[in-house]
Amino acid sequence: MDKIVEELKKIDGVTKKSAEKIIFDLIINKDKIDILENILKDIKNIFNECETCFYFKENNLCTFCDNENRNRNIICVVSTKMDAIKIAESNYNGMIHVLNGEINLNKNIGPEKLKMTELFVRINKDIEMLLALNLTFEGEVTSNYIANKAKGICEKISRIARGIPLGGVLDYIDQETLNDAILNRKKL
Amino acid sequence: MDKIVEELKKIDGVTKKSAEKIIFDLIINKDKIDILENILKDIKNIFNECETCFYFKENNLCTFCDNENRNRNIICVVSTKMDAIKIAESNYNGMIHVLNGEINLNKNIGPEKLKMTELFVRINKDIEMLLALNLTFEGEVTSNYIANKAKGICEKISRIARGIPLGGVLDYIDQETLNDAILNRKKL
Repeated sequence: MDKIVEELKKIDGVTKKSAEKIIFDLIINKDKIDILENILKDIKNIFNECETCFYFKENNLCTFCDNENRNRNIICVVSTKMDAIKIAESNYNGMIHVLNGEINLNKNIGPEKLKMTELFVRINKDIEMLLALNLTFEGEVTSNYIANKAKGICEKISRIARGIPLGGVLDYIDQETLNDAILNRKKL
Repeated sequence: MDKIVEELKKIDGVTKKSAEKIIFDLIINKDKIDILENILKDIKNIFNECETCFYFKENNLCTFCDNENRNRNIICVVSTKMDAIKIAESNYNGMIHVLNGEINLNKNIGPEKLKMTELFVRINKDIEMLLALNLTFEGEVTSNYIANKAKGICEKISRIARGIPLGGVLDYIDQETLNDAILNRKKL
């Protein structure tokens, strides 16, 4: 049992407590094992990481990169795919770039561990870069790093601003506030 | 994506947020899908619910019922398998009975939805029943229900007492306090 709990904890979003709950639920309701097996099959077959923006692709199509109606002259930079979902559901109509994390020197996460090179390949003087990182210490460090490095390459760098409280985490912000913050973005 | 999140949420211990985290982790790290598939195979093949005490059986053996060294004259009643794990790891050396829940009339959970009949089949005048339910409203209601119904059948009914703070949830109590509470159980 302990071994299975440890194995299950290797997956993001699963704690010791939730692992135990999941396992016991599956022991009692074995039909849920089939549900989970089908989910795994779907994830294997249908979903992939987009190799341009690092959002996910469903049936090999990325909501952002493969949508011709989106504005290709603006790229919104976020730290996680969860944040990107929020952006996808907002009024924002441009491109996205998921860093897959934030700079955190305590946890030994430098820019080289993020999708940073992949970001700088995508920007140029015609593209606006909209930073939508968390307003936490790590988010600010990451924003500043990108803004500094992008000077000279990118002429328009902005960040979502109004409406997000200091210390706030993007993933928990309501959609209206987020729309507001995108609309009122501030040029850096 | 939304469909998969909804499916995954059907499993106990999985919230919308953790479902998203799990799915994205599996999309990025497809090797973890294999880990999860093996876990599901193990749960299918190795684990079952014990039909006597409703704890789990590993390779068809129950830690409580199939251990000859345990005292069969005392049955500890808990609401969940997670609580039973805590009891199994404590100094307690008797039997267990998992109710698979607590009486909660707001959620329409009456005694008939719990493993109550199965409990009363197991008790008689020679057996001590040790109630180890949560000290919450629902836990107290369940305890009182059992204590009342067992009068006349069971002569020794006790409850773990000292050390557990009022409103406390058994699953989060440290092992030492729990040992204390078992040692200082109070006859009802």
